[in-house]
Amino acid sequence: MRPIYLDNNATTRADPAVVSAMLPYFSEQFGNASSVHAFGSEVAGAVKQVRKSLQALLGSAFDHEIVFTSGGTESDNAAILSALDNQDGRDEIVTTAVEHPAILSLVEHLAASRGIKTHLVGVDSRGRLDIEAYRRALGPRTAIASVMWANNETGTLFPVERLAVMAHEAGALFHTDAVQAVGKVPLDLKATAIDMLSLSGHKLHGPKGIGALYLRKGTKFNPLIRGGPQERRRRGGTENVPAIVGLGKAAGLALIHLQDEQTGVRALRDRLEYGILKLGDCSVLGDVENRLPNTSNIAFEHLEGEAILHHLNRAGIAASLGSACASGSMEPSHVLRAMNVPMTALRGAIRFSLSRDNTIDDVVCVLNLLPEIIARLRASSPSWQERAHITTNPSRSTELSL
Amino acid sequence: MRPIYLDNNATTRADPAVVSAMLPYFSEQFGNASSVHAFGSEVAGAVKQVRKSLQALLGSAFDHEIVFTSGGTESDNAAILSALDNQDGRDEIVTTAVEHPAILSLVEHLAASRGIKTHLVGVDSRGRLDIEAYRRALGPRTAIASVMWANNETGTLFPVERLAVMAHEAGALFHTDAVQAVGKVPLDLKATAIDMLSLSGHKLHGPKGIGALYLRKGTKFNPLIRGGPQERRRRGGTENVPAIVGLGKAAGLALIHLQDEQTGVRALRDRLEYGILKLGDCSVLGDVENRLPNTSNIAFEHLEGEAILHHLNRAGIAASLGSACASGSMEPSHVLRAMNVPMTALRGAIRFSLSRDNTIDDVVCVLNLLPEIIARLRASSPSWQERAHITTNPSRSTELSL
Repeated sequence: MRPIYLDNNATTRADPAVVSAMLPYFSEQFGNASSVHAFGSEVAGAVKQVRKSLQALLGSAFDHEIVFTSGGTESDNAAILSALDNQDGRDEIVTTAVEHPAILSLVEHLAASRGIKTHLVGVDSRGRLDIEAYRRALGPRTAIASVMWANNETGTLFPVERLAVMAHEAGALFHTDAVQAVGKVPLDLKATAIDMLSLSGHKLHGPKGIGALYLRKGTKFNPLIRGGPQERRRRGGTENVPAIVGLGKAAGLALIHLQDEQTGVRALRDRLEYGILKLGDCSVLGDVENRLPNTSNIAFEHLEGEAILHHLNRAGIAASLGSACASGSMEPSHVLRAMNVPMTALRGAIRFSLSRDNTIDDVVCVLNLLPEIIARLRASSPSWQERAHITTNPSRSTELSL
Repeated sequence: MRPIYLDNNATTRADPAVVSAMLPYFSEQFGNASSVHAFGSEVAGAVKQVRKSLQALLGSAFDHEIVFTSGGTESDNAAILSALDNQDGRDEIVTTAVEHPAILSLVEHLAASRGIKTHLVGVDSRGRLDIEAYRRALGPRTAIASVMWANNETGTLFPVERLAVMAHEAGALFHTDAVQAVGKVPLDLKATAIDMLSLSGHKLHGPKGIGALYLRKGTKFNPLIRGGPQERRRRGGTENVPAIVGLGKAAGLALIHLQDEQTGVRALRDRLEYGILKLGDCSVLGDVENRLPNTSNIAFEHLEGEAILHHLNRAGIAASLGSACASGSMEPSHVLRAMNVPMTALRGAIRFSLSRDNTIDDVVCVLNLLPEIIARLRASSPSWQERAHITTNPSRSTELSL
């Protein structure tokens, strides 16, 4: 049986067309894009073309608003640090309790090392931002507000266009970590007030190790990585030409497949989710009506997520426990904790994240295998059995509460 | 005629074996190395193996001393900034006037933004470091000394093992930008006092967009890029698995070819250089006896380097004017200025940098084409004709000096 990959929010398979596009740039057109000879100038042209592809995907007004970086984490770090340097008299950050570690571990460090105050705006039980708390957090000392476009664990979408306007009203810059949104939702940055946006190649079937920071024309910027004059002096280091070309191809494909993400991938996700919910005693976490079309975070009550993952893995099915970026750590997801998900549900939460690589066969296969896995785990879960007993035997429940 | 690439200090052709090694990691073994399922664990093993390959190439004592980065520039920036954060009461930098922009533009920024004092130690006319000035620059306030292992423009090698010991005697950390040295000279870091070393994949026939920072066990380190727990919390961001695997293959090949760099590549370089010098009125810049085996920086007196490059380029030969990293800028090389190369020579300096991809046919072809290019340019250079006239007609020279 071929393995089934349902962990596309952690990373995606590079599209074979992306790899084909990259290939000539390793050993044939391998020049340094900054070199003046033919080996350099031919690749410099390719890099320029990619900027236009990203411009089209993002709906940005100018291709020079795109700065290539090594990925989403670098873009996020660069955006926050630059804003702190360039907003005179403003030294506070407003962000959310459910951001990616690329934002949260940075602001924790800034608090510890430089005394930078960060307001972590909370979310409700469905993962929706507390807009009033966000408004209150913004003020004359806010240098930057940074809110993710879509949450990586639940897929919940945030109203970033509106949040950007609110940030501007307070005189602050607005940044969004759109790593999970780019390629999955339509974007038209020129119609928004967003100043900076982070994206990552490997989340949209492009290569790892490449990303971009959208930097609205006129936004003051200090580079995070300083060296040569590459990227208009906004990011030093030899241009990663093969990966840039791969990102360009991925952006072009994402634009072509955008409609399919909204319909085809969504239909697969919904079918998977519907099938799983029929098992009972499980629920979807996040803002069900307003989330990425590919993501389903399901809490299996009274079970251990790790045990479910283990059995799925043995059956050749890859899914995720919270965010893969924080794996290795056994702490419960900060996102689900911020949502006040009850411990009985939180521990059994599994994220299924699909992509255009998935087929109906994948979904059918999971729906065939999962009931037995869940039944077996329930059979060996004292907590679940107790709960089942309570539910099916109200009289005993009453006894217990006496 | 196939193009001839003599600009290997700017970037190298990725070895086809490197590309083959990378290929499966784009669309087959594409998992996130931090994921717990099979897609993740199989690539995590590959990443671990690469750390061992780099350990072998560098002669480092532990594989966890290797931190993967996006390249040499990031490694350089991370090393300097971390040292400033971790050396209590020490806030000065000692480096050289001939470093790569990855160091120089960072220290310029630190001076302007944070008042960090940097001592730029000079070199002599052959590009050799002024060791006494280096010793004087080190002091109780030195946080870090950073000296490149080999200069990218002239190939001049610096005595970094000795300089590291001197830095330690002053209580400072020692970092070396070894981007040009790794793969060209034998390294045995465990036998040195070097605390940190930067390397870049694409300078040793590996992929662009990947590099490493060697970080001696026990060296305190603050990450430049913060995010997830990757790289033992020393560098956030999803591991760039294909590029890491490519770097590992490149490191393995570099170890195999190291002897050839010292003999075969050196012989080609020497033959090219000897042939060019026979044209007269040109000289080798840098420390001729003590430099990289692949590099020859030749000053064509009274000619314009750009014109030479242009004609070479039209003939399908790629070489470089100073450093490709600083191209686009028309300023004369900071390295050659630090060496006090006379303006008549500096303007006509061309860097030829070879690699194991070059053949004797390449050298013969350049030596066949170059004399006519130089003769033509000399014929149209008033400055050269005046000089030639003076040299060959002493009586007129005497008249002129009257």
